Amino acid sequence: MIVPTTSIRPARPLLRLFSTTNRLQANRAFVYSQNGSPKEVLTALTYPSLSPPPPGTLNLRYLLSPINPADLNVIEGVYPSKPSPSSFPNLSSQVFVAGNEGLAEIKDVGSGVDGLQVGDWVVATKQQVGTWASARNVQASEVLKIPRTDGLSEVNAATITVNPATAYNMLTDFVDLQPGSWVIQNGANSAVGQAVIHIAKARGLKTINLVRDRPDIDVLKQELQSMGATHVLTYEELEDKKSLKAKIQAWTGGDEIRLALNCVGGNSTTRMAGLLGQDAHIVTYGAMARAPLSLGASLFIFKNLTSHGFWVSRWYTQHGKEDRERMMSELVALMSEGKLAEPKHEILTIRREQSDEEATQAVRAVLDKMLSGQSRSKILLRIEEPNE
Amino acid sequence: MIVPTTSIRPARPLLRLFSTTNRLQANRAFVYSQNGSPKEVLTALTYPSLSPPPPGTLNLRYLLSPINPADLNVIEGVYPSKPSPSSFPNLSSQVFVAGNEGLAEIKDVGSGVDGLQVGDWVVATKQQVGTWASARNVQASEVLKIPRTDGLSEVNAATITVNPATAYNMLTDFVDLQPGSWVIQNGANSAVGQAVIHIAKARGLKTINLVRDRPDIDVLKQELQSMGATHVLTYEELEDKKSLKAKIQAWTGGDEIRLALNCVGGNSTTRMAGLLGQDAHIVTYGAMARAPLSLGASLFIFKNLTSHGFWVSRWYTQHGKEDRERMMSELVALMSEGKLAEPKHEILTIRREQSDEEATQAVRAVLDKMLSGQSRSKILLRIEEPNE
Repeated sequence: MIVPTTSIRPARPLLRLFSTTNRLQANRAFVYSQNGSPKEVLTALTYPSLSPPPPGTLNLRYLLSPINPADLNVIEGVYPSKPSPSSFPNLSSQVFVAGNEGLAEIKDVGSGVDGLQVGDWVVATKQQVGTWASARNVQASEVLKIPRTDGLSEVNAATITVNPATAYNMLTDFVDLQPGSWVIQNGANSAVGQAVIHIAKARGLKTINLVRDRPDIDVLKQELQSMGATHVLTYEELEDKKSLKAKIQAWTGGDEIRLALNCVGGNSTTRMAGLLGQDAHIVTYGAMARAPLSLGASLFIFKNLTSHGFWVSRWYTQHGKEDRERMMSELVALMSEGKLAEPKHEILTIRREQSDEEATQAVRAVLDKMLSGQSRSKILLRIEEPNE
Repeated sequence: MIVPTTSIRPARPLLRLFSTTNRLQANRAFVYSQNGSPKEVLTALTYPSLSPPPPGTLNLRYLLSPINPADLNVIEGVYPSKPSPSSFPNLSSQVFVAGNEGLAEIKDVGSGVDGLQVGDWVVATKQQVGTWASARNVQASEVLKIPRTDGLSEVNAATITVNPATAYNMLTDFVDLQPGSWVIQNGANSAVGQAVIHIAKARGLKTINLVRDRPDIDVLKQELQSMGATHVLTYEELEDKKSLKAKIQAWTGGDEIRLALNCVGGNSTTRMAGLLGQDAHIVTYGAMARAPLSLGASLFIFKNLTSHGFWVSRWYTQHGKEDRERMMSELVALMSEGKLAEPKHEILTIRREQSDEEATQAVRAVLDKMLSGQSRSKILLRIEEPNE
């Protein structure tokens, strides 16, 4: 269910439209012309059907595009990744198309494009290409084909490039983990945290998963364990150091934990780091507690801890086609085999009969819900081609 | 000048001596039989002249042995490195000989030892061998020859394995620095900090050096600059972020700083990390502020900062003879050319005519001074062979 649009300010007519095109206004995108609060600057825009693709490019029809938290920061202008502006034939100035992730089907292939054909599924591997749109023309080099296998849902494929890729690479790039190796993570109930649980389970890794305490904590613990979490603890359970160390010693049989994944920060992360063994690595990919990572010098000096950051955008810029394809094929295999479940999600369909004004309100309402922390599921946009 | 021995408790007779040996009591060491406060447990012990060295070993005469702060922590039992116990022919039980660093001259060479001869200078590369002694028998594989070149003083050679080695390897192991590259460090007036300034200067690196404010700050700034420091700032000068960034931008011409060396911790280190560029490394080797290292997640995620620790003891265990010899020959060359000065120091001579009781008091007094933070110079022990 999607929230009602009350209390959201009406969209101002930010975009000056030409009326000179003869083509059908057969597409819709969510765009902004300047950074600001997403619920004020983001606007639906209808635009003509695409021209045939120039050489080396593809015309795509987006099927599903997630709204990730970072997308809001990009619109606000506070995220280090910036999109390039786009032109539309019915607009007098350039605008930015929102969205970084999404699943698209190829509708038309330009000359000189190898290995891709009409009907293939692709995802963007270039950052900030603007996926909140019904149709886009893109460089063939900026997408990666996703095999349409049995068991791979649209939702799986639409959410593969950010969270599962983050989980996969954090479990691969920093420590040489072997089946039976232990990994500890906080924020274990986040989308990345759940992907870590699934991928670790499939690779035979053991996980200790930290979550916030809550009234239904036993339900959550069971839920994560049924995904494959070896153990689940609350941050509060980290506070009794002595009994905790004994507990973990009993679980691991004395094996040292050499990888910690951190999306929280603050005191509980300091305590998590204290559970690591010699020569361990802590990888930070988020800061839900909005507190810095605070680690004693002796962890670094005497235990040889190394502290890194992981940003999936950087991973894509630093890895070529071969690495990307290898990762995607492994993730697709896990998804197809049912070992990497869809994230909890809701789909917001922007219907063909909605006006741009109505579409704007619908999306702004969802963004408002996300910004106020009320949304617990991932929300994906399905943008129908609008009525003329 | 060495402090008087007032206010130090008299040594208790901790060691039970045999009286059965016929050999001369020609040596003296500082030993302890159990961990505790160094000014309570450390005791002078006279012992017989050494037997001829067994195969593969050397008899050494220690010339100068520094008292490093970590030595006190080892005696207290709170340091991660532990010495092995030693036997003496006139003692009924094993004891620990204090001291980790020192310069010795070879007095006798056992069979099967290649490349070392009587009169050579050596330093210990095994950790915690017990250097606060006039004479020891050691495995030849546990020492490294130091070439006796013009310009290399005993003090230089006696203090080469810990502080200059720490500085040298931190400038080598983490970032590929080229002449003209910038390095920032705090605690720049420490022994390691000064070695960093000297080595960086010799390698054509530029340094920004942070120190505590003090009444004679201009004198200190000039002193460090005369050693080769490119710029010196106080921690207080880090607080005005805006003018600081402009200043550093003007100094570096916009080149990014990719290596920070930290022996302080706390707020000023957080501010130091904020001055680093993309893909930088911060290396912690001390914690003078006794506060953790506190770094925002965005430094790790978006700026790809990596945070490491450096511990010279680990370096020696992880590097073989070739690496050790290469480092030492470079450090000796710098010292011989006058590019790596002796640390500020005082020498405490334990005179041959002093009784064990007097020797104990003399050393305990110095340790007490160090523990109470009154000592600003490095103190080195010169232990004369005692009178029978």
